[in-house]
Amino acid sequence: MITVIQLPAAVHALDLFGTAVFALTGALRALTRKLDLMGAVVLAVVTALGGGMMRDALIGRHPPAAFADQTYLLIAIVVGIAVFFWGRTIREQESWLITFDAIGLGVFTLVGAWVADQTGLGNIGILFIAMLTATGGGALRAMLVAEIPFILKKEIYASASLFGALTYLALSALDCSNTVIIWSVMLMTTGSRLLAWRLHLNLPR
Amino acid sequence: MITVIQLPAAVHALDLFGTAVFALTGALRALTRKLDLMGAVVLAVVTALGGGMMRDALIGRHPPAAFADQTYLLIAIVVGIAVFFWGRTIREQESWLITFDAIGLGVFTLVGAWVADQTGLGNIGILFIAMLTATGGGALRAMLVAEIPFILKKEIYASASLFGALTYLALSALDCSNTVIIWSVMLMTTGSRLLAWRLHLNLPR
Amino acid sequence: MITVIQLPAAVHALDLFGTAVFALTGALRALTRKLDLMGAVVLAVVTALGGGMMRDALIGRHPPAAFADQTYLLIAIVVGIAVFFWGRTIREQESWLITFDAIGLGVFTLVGAWVADQTGLGNIGILFIAMLTATGGGALRAMLVAEIPFILKKEIYASASLFGALTYLALSALDCSNTVIIWSVMLMTTGSRLLAWRLHLNLPR
Repeated sequence: MITVIQLPAAVHALDLFGTAVFALTGALRALTRKLDLMGAVVLAVVTALGGGMMRDALIGRHPPAAFADQTYLLIAIVVGIAVFFWGRTIREQESWLITFDAIGLGVFTLVGAWVADQTGLGNIGILFIAMLTATGGGALRAMLVAEIPFILKKEIYASASLFGALTYLALSALDCSNTVIIWSVMLMTTGSRLLAWRLHLNLPR
Repeated sequence: MITVIQLPAAVHALDLFGTAVFALTGALRALTRKLDLMGAVVLAVVTALGGGMMRDALIGRHPPAAFADQTYLLIAIVVGIAVFFWGRTIREQESWLITFDAIGLGVFTLVGAWVADQTGLGNIGILFIAMLTATGGGALRAMLVAEIPFILKKEIYASASLFGALTYLALSALDCSNTVIIWSVMLMTTGSRLLAWRLHLNLPR
Repeated sequence: MITVIQLPAAVHALDLFGTAVFALTGALRALTRKLDLMGAVVLAVVTALGGGMMRDALIGRHPPAAFADQTYLLIAIVVGIAVFFWGRTIREQESWLITFDAIGLGVFTLVGAWVADQTGLGNIGILFIAMLTATGGGALRAMLVAEIPFILKKEIYASASLFGALTYLALSALDCSNTVIIWSVMLMTTGSRLLAWRLHLNLPR
């Protein structure tokens, strides 16, 4: 059984926030694709929790975090339903949505790196799991609606998660305090994502 | 190691029946998409066993049910081969096929809820795992052939599984006997699916 | 905890070779689809390690082989980057690439069958896991770029893996030495794949 040391309360709150935001983007995609209520809830849940579930299945954390604390599932379901009924005026490209999504990306990158580290994975494993946690749900959602995930084509997105995960490794190696590590990782991920979005930066292609 | 209390013999028989039916629908999709023999077998196996395998990977049941009792894999393979050679006259929309598929949906919903409950998951976790068991294989099949899964767009399908899983929770909370729970869940799932199909009911969209 | 008896050093070397080749084919597909650098690395990693990761999540091998020995991840990442910058002249249909890929298919089939056998799976489970290990990464890659995996449509590919896995079962039942089994499985898989490619053999469809 894998025991994961709890993250500080502030991070837990941000984790719930990230879950809600990712559920929101999933449900919006369902509206765009003209799916029904169940489709909205399914895409909300998959987007918000799919990355963490794949992580937990890989590292052998049973039951996965999403089942150990059902608040996550509940939030994703409620957001999916709410967006379906009252979210039709939200456009997928609104600034606040992209900002919130970037915050979710930051939190999930941190939580993924943290869990992988506690599990005893090596450095590259930590990078992999951090990015899987942050971008896996969105990739699953894309596969479900037969689209190419934007981790494969969007301006700096998975890369922002990678920057955050690298920050985690660097500050851990420098024996920084947990507080410093936690906030630096989230700031680095969210900041680089938003900067790239503002400046229309892309990786070479 | 997760030990799952065995279901009654009648449910086990229905579980094998559901496996055969789901394999049949998978292989038929392979014919529709003009895939070769191996494609028919792969889609038969994925459709019939994919949901249960994802369930077992998530909850940490090792080896998954499909490996612990190889009858399931054998049935899916044999059905895939048989459909490829002798099933070309079967249309995917035939009434008996949709009826059989609804029975499979009911059995898989029950088995999923049962296994999740034995694993000690909470209520929302049980709903999630029941629906994953029942609809995950079909979703995987759709992703493999780059289609949008019908759980995302078909008239009441995943919803029928949800009704069945909710029935499971309600009757368990009321301390009903296993026999009552088992048959009620299957009846509720299969019945609501068939009713929706007959009446062309859809969720709001 | 699942303990897997190590394969001989020669097989380990071939396993690293297979990882590099599968990463190469993944990154080439990213170039074909005009993805960016991160897309090339993601598809390289998914193609090279996705099959083994799904195998390990299913059989409960934690951490998965790809995390226990990070050389695999490192190779896939480096190959992905290298192909992105210097691989643009490589065409996906070149003879040497198909030959190398067939060798990778052979090694991965062997390693999958070996691991499944050590885990105590039955015969059909061994066939399933061997084929999943060898073809799962390619299938995942195809789902990520919304294509139909070639295991579903290419001339003898998954079938070559099946022939190899059947060879494993047959020679194990005959109590052949590990050396005989290992090289026969790889020869059978790689040989049948290359023969089918040369002769344009296909399964009935």
